[in-house]
Amino acid sequence: MKMFLSDNNSGVHPKIIEAMVKANEEHVFPYGNDVYTKKAELKFKELFGENIDVYFVLNGTAANVIGLSAALRSYESIICTDSAHINGDECGAVEKFTGSKLLQVPNSNGKISIDDIEKMLKLKGNYHRTQPKMISISQCSEFGTVYTVEEIKEISKFAHENDLYLHVDGSRISNAAVSLNTNLKEMITEAGVDILSFGGTKNGLMFGEAILILNPNISEDLKYIRKQGMQLISKMRYISAQFIEYLENDLYYKNAKQANDMASLLENELKNIKQIKITYPVQSNMVFMKIPKDVIKYIENKYEFYTIDENEGLIRIVTSFDTTEKDIENFVNDIKLGLKI
Amino acid sequence: MKMFLSDNNSGVHPKIIEAMVKANEEHVFPYGNDVYTKKAELKFKELFGENIDVYFVLNGTAANVIGLSAALRSYESIICTDSAHINGDECGAVEKFTGSKLLQVPNSNGKISIDDIEKMLKLKGNYHRTQPKMISISQCSEFGTVYTVEEIKEISKFAHENDLYLHVDGSRISNAAVSLNTNLKEMITEAGVDILSFGGTKNGLMFGEAILILNPNISEDLKYIRKQGMQLISKMRYISAQFIEYLENDLYYKNAKQANDMASLLENELKNIKQIKITYPVQSNMVFMKIPKDVIKYIENKYEFYTIDENEGLIRIVTSFDTTEKDIENFVNDIKLGLKI
Amino acid sequence: MKMFLSDNNSGVHPKIIEAMVKANEEHVFPYGNDVYTKKAELKFKELFGENIDVYFVLNGTAANVIGLSAALRSYESIICTDSAHINGDECGAVEKFTGSKLLQVPNSNGKISIDDIEKMLKLKGNYHRTQPKMISISQCSEFGTVYTVEEIKEISKFAHENDLYLHVDGSRISNAAVSLNTNLKEMITEAGVDILSFGGTKNGLMFGEAILILNPNISEDLKYIRKQGMQLISKMRYISAQFIEYLENDLYYKNAKQANDMASLLENELKNIKQIKITYPVQSNMVFMKIPKDVIKYIENKYEFYTIDENEGLIRIVTSFDTTEKDIENFVNDIKLGLKI
Amino acid sequence: MKMFLSDNNSGVHPKIIEAMVKANEEHVFPYGNDVYTKKAELKFKELFGENIDVYFVLNGTAANVIGLSAALRSYESIICTDSAHINGDECGAVEKFTGSKLLQVPNSNGKISIDDIEKMLKLKGNYHRTQPKMISISQCSEFGTVYTVEEIKEISKFAHENDLYLHVDGSRISNAAVSLNTNLKEMITEAGVDILSFGGTKNGLMFGEAILILNPNISEDLKYIRKQGMQLISKMRYISAQFIEYLENDLYYKNAKQANDMASLLENELKNIKQIKITYPVQSNMVFMKIPKDVIKYIENKYEFYTIDENEGLIRIVTSFDTTEKDIENFVNDIKLGLKI
Repeated sequence: MKMFLSDNNSGVHPKIIEAMVKANEEHVFPYGNDVYTKKAELKFKELFGENIDVYFVLNGTAANVIGLSAALRSYESIICTDSAHINGDECGAVEKFTGSKLLQVPNSNGKISIDDIEKMLKLKGNYHRTQPKMISISQCSEFGTVYTVEEIKEISKFAHENDLYLHVDGSRISNAAVSLNTNLKEMITEAGVDILSFGGTKNGLMFGEAILILNPNISEDLKYIRKQGMQLISKMRYISAQFIEYLENDLYYKNAKQANDMASLLENELKNIKQIKITYPVQSNMVFMKIPKDVIKYIENKYEFYTIDENEGLIRIVTSFDTTEKDIENFVNDIKLGLKI
Repeated sequence: MKMFLSDNNSGVHPKIIEAMVKANEEHVFPYGNDVYTKKAELKFKELFGENIDVYFVLNGTAANVIGLSAALRSYESIICTDSAHINGDECGAVEKFTGSKLLQVPNSNGKISIDDIEKMLKLKGNYHRTQPKMISISQCSEFGTVYTVEEIKEISKFAHENDLYLHVDGSRISNAAVSLNTNLKEMITEAGVDILSFGGTKNGLMFGEAILILNPNISEDLKYIRKQGMQLISKMRYISAQFIEYLENDLYYKNAKQANDMASLLENELKNIKQIKITYPVQSNMVFMKIPKDVIKYIENKYEFYTIDENEGLIRIVTSFDTTEKDIENFVNDIKLGLKI
Repeated sequence: MKMFLSDNNSGVHPKIIEAMVKANEEHVFPYGNDVYTKKAELKFKELFGENIDVYFVLNGTAANVIGLSAALRSYESIICTDSAHINGDECGAVEKFTGSKLLQVPNSNGKISIDDIEKMLKLKGNYHRTQPKMISISQCSEFGTVYTVEEIKEISKFAHENDLYLHVDGSRISNAAVSLNTNLKEMITEAGVDILSFGGTKNGLMFGEAILILNPNISEDLKYIRKQGMQLISKMRYISAQFIEYLENDLYYKNAKQANDMASLLENELKNIKQIKITYPVQSNMVFMKIPKDVIKYIENKYEFYTIDENEGLIRIVTSFDTTEKDIENFVNDIKLGLKI
Repeated sequence: MKMFLSDNNSGVHPKIIEAMVKANEEHVFPYGNDVYTKKAELKFKELFGENIDVYFVLNGTAANVIGLSAALRSYESIICTDSAHINGDECGAVEKFTGSKLLQVPNSNGKISIDDIEKMLKLKGNYHRTQPKMISISQCSEFGTVYTVEEIKEISKFAHENDLYLHVDGSRISNAAVSLNTNLKEMITEAGVDILSFGGTKNGLMFGEAILILNPNISEDLKYIRKQGMQLISKMRYISAQFIEYLENDLYYKNAKQANDMASLLENELKNIKQIKITYPVQSNMVFMKIPKDVIKYIENKYEFYTIDENEGLIRIVTSFDTTEKDIENFVNDIKLGLKI
């Protein structure tokens, strides 16, 4: 039975696990000094450009924390939305490891506005206040919405004009690329992003994420921060082998496309039902909607999903690389049964 | 070609990777709320006793840091040997995350003495000094030596009489169990250990280690510390599936036995050669020895190993679960060729 | 010329500095093991009750950070208003030292509401989120308003029913006592406060603040946290001598009364002028008001005060223990001149 | 009765407290934006050279921690002796705030050797190890010995050749200047020191120490680190007024000379007594000596001093700016009475 709780409920894409099995041969050097890791780095450079640094870490929390840490001192702060994953869902990992404060601004459909960022800049130079040094956005946002390439460019331009860096939490970065029908280089490197947390676990990988440092001015000391941050794995080839397969032949794109398409299908099936209200633009693989409370009760016997607000009947449905049209059809039918239509 | 650099040069035991592939089926709940994780926890309880808590993390550094953190405030300190892995080889991860100071004492063949621990206790109650609260030992030690069950009991007794906890860095814990011809419960639980970092990656696993909390007085809040410490993996089943296979049918023991036997074989082949001096008792899967410098040059063309001190001709040879008698024979032959004997 | 920028513009009350000079005699034991410190602690116990612990630190930031740290682990969080001094004006000192996250809720005239606190409690038990463990309020608030004793009781009752502690940032605690016409024991100890930062520098002291631990369950290890937090002074008698004088003969109360009375006088002189709008209830020694922009220009040539929002004409006037009626009269006259009335 | 426990047992020099009283006049800007602080900074520049930055903090622990923090990331480490105050006597404050590891090397009469420093440099570039970035020495050392100007120059030269900074813990820096019969500029600035903790509390001040940044490449962000480190005092004039008086008319030098002379007098009186063994060269204001245990019992009824090792009869005598010849004579007489000579 497929779950809709999150895109980490699914297993690993068969090609990925096959690649891991194939990497299980000889003795190799540990800690990334192996041919798999070298090759995976090259794959990233092919996609994002030559002048980047690639660091593999173990999960998404770490990709964000270690990446941010590379460019921050503890008295420097991070501007992000109140809905940002780094703000609400990482048990204070950013504050604990970096010592930095998160400066929360309101979100609009999960996205940040330059006006709100600008208000925070009045702290600059005042030594009673943390010093804003980083903007962090999530692409896709926590509500499944997607910044356009133009929007990212505007934010990075504003950031650099104001001596700030731009970090992108890309736990669903592939879904965003599919959504925008663009490529990663255009969306990230050319748009002026400085640090990217490149996620794969939510899109068919087993574990391991990549930190991409796109701004060459950012410290090369990240290798020490990674180790001190408990994120250096000895048998790194098993992360690298995943990423080689993931980036070759566009598996990252195909997986994300399937997930996005299924969310889109779900939206199309439901959007004209008057008892249902889609609450955020469906731009990737998440559908937020308000449905009658008794229908929630009805479908939660058969499906796993996240009820955000029981009183309001607000739920979140997340599709995955292995969600099928049949899965969506069944789900829609059950909703309709619940609605008695 | 097999390497002797470390026991993390090897790949993953075939049964382990098979178990991971088999776990790659359905959607399951993330973050450890899955049947694999429940079963893996039960396996640990079978081996160590019912009253333990089990927390999976991503690597050995994290097992040590997160485990220690559960029982320490930042002004409390950790007594360990100067040779301890947590002291020298984790890029300051303990200090960074826990804020605690490591109080180093001299080692004797990698092991700690109660006399040296006792000297540190005079700091107690003096608020200019950190407060000793933890003894951390490595089993096996960094020089491959092994504490007897009786020695562990003495240390834990001393610890508890002095309001200290006993932590064991068990990155090679299975090799120690084989070495002592004992079982894990006797060596750890019954010997009075409070916290164990249970390692597997050096003995045939891919990634993931377990923190075992054996002392029920230690905080159950470790689940928050783990998340804040960037060590909560979403698809936890792929760690748990490894441990189920590892603990069932004694794979952990068989793998360690093979590695230990091969180190023992190597020792036996070399110990009577007068140009070679074995520098530490060979009690697990590591052989430290001094050999003529020109022989190092000769064999390093064909083999990977760690030269600790070039001038002294001190090298370290580590065997692995997949090291074979043939591997040892070849290596010994090449050493003899180098020695021209 | 008196300033109205803050109550730390003033010097030290003559009786305080006289007490410091008198303490400058013999050699005494350092670090608080002296008769002055013992006596100062007794004075605090007379005022707040026997069962408290008193720790002197060097400034207000430290009183807050070290006091909070005594009762928090890094994954536990602090609920406070967006306007709280610990949130906005301490350069991230709380996050840096405790590792804890601040959970901001909206303020109403600088004060917190139980409804907003309650919303944060839904994080409890979710290991992706920090665990609320502390409510921190400022008495007086950053806008000069004051919680009634009844309000503090309600908050502490709610806190304790929900396994939370209540911390009070009392940098202006004496002004609050005057405002409520109550005593410190009733307002703090009997109202159920767990930790108090007892400030004096804004009310006529030179330096040094006191952390009062009112809840006996909170760790006695604060003496180690204080030292590790760089807050143990060797010649502590010079802090203690201040507090003895401050608490004897109600100097804390008299000083605060003078400051409050002068703010009240200012309010009375201005509240009926139609071009001026008092923006927060004047309950202690701060007056926030909107006045015409050209009047700000006019008076800022002669007086120092804080312009919060130039566009809105919002300014803050803070009176001090040594502000006189004449000072207020002159200031009011100059405002009237500026207003041409 | 004078104590010999530490040089912080004494009170404040009369001229210092007089200067503080004189500063207690008008309202001034807080946080160091006052004429006293500007003047104190100028005084430091007169003594140490124009190109330095001066930051006042509240105590010696903070001077060390905040100063070190300005030039370190958490994965960078500090080489110091095992006897260093930052290593043993600050309750882990360095580790807690900077996250950095202290790399201890043996001391020789309290001093560091370049050979021992050099051994630590082999960690460089190895990402499993912290990266040495700082040498910290104490001048005077914790055993009262003093580095010559030439020795400091050699260490700073070695430091800079190896991409390290040199920090001096100068809690007794004035005693060292007296001892060497040199001036501060020659001993510190011209000798190539990068960061100096300039102490005064042990030499007649009340509280407050100065961090001097002598290397212009070190971050100007120290003002944020100071605030985040809880070390920004609002009424800074009372620190600054002390330093103005202390540096004007060479009070720092005169006070230290008196203390040093008294230690020298004590040494001269005792060094020829055969039952007494002076254990470290007496070069400043501390005398370490072994005396018969029953004599310790005898004199500890009348005097306060620190017994380092009761079994060995090792005690420490510290003289202060206000120790008189009469004090020493009485003490010597009582020792002789104890010795029955």
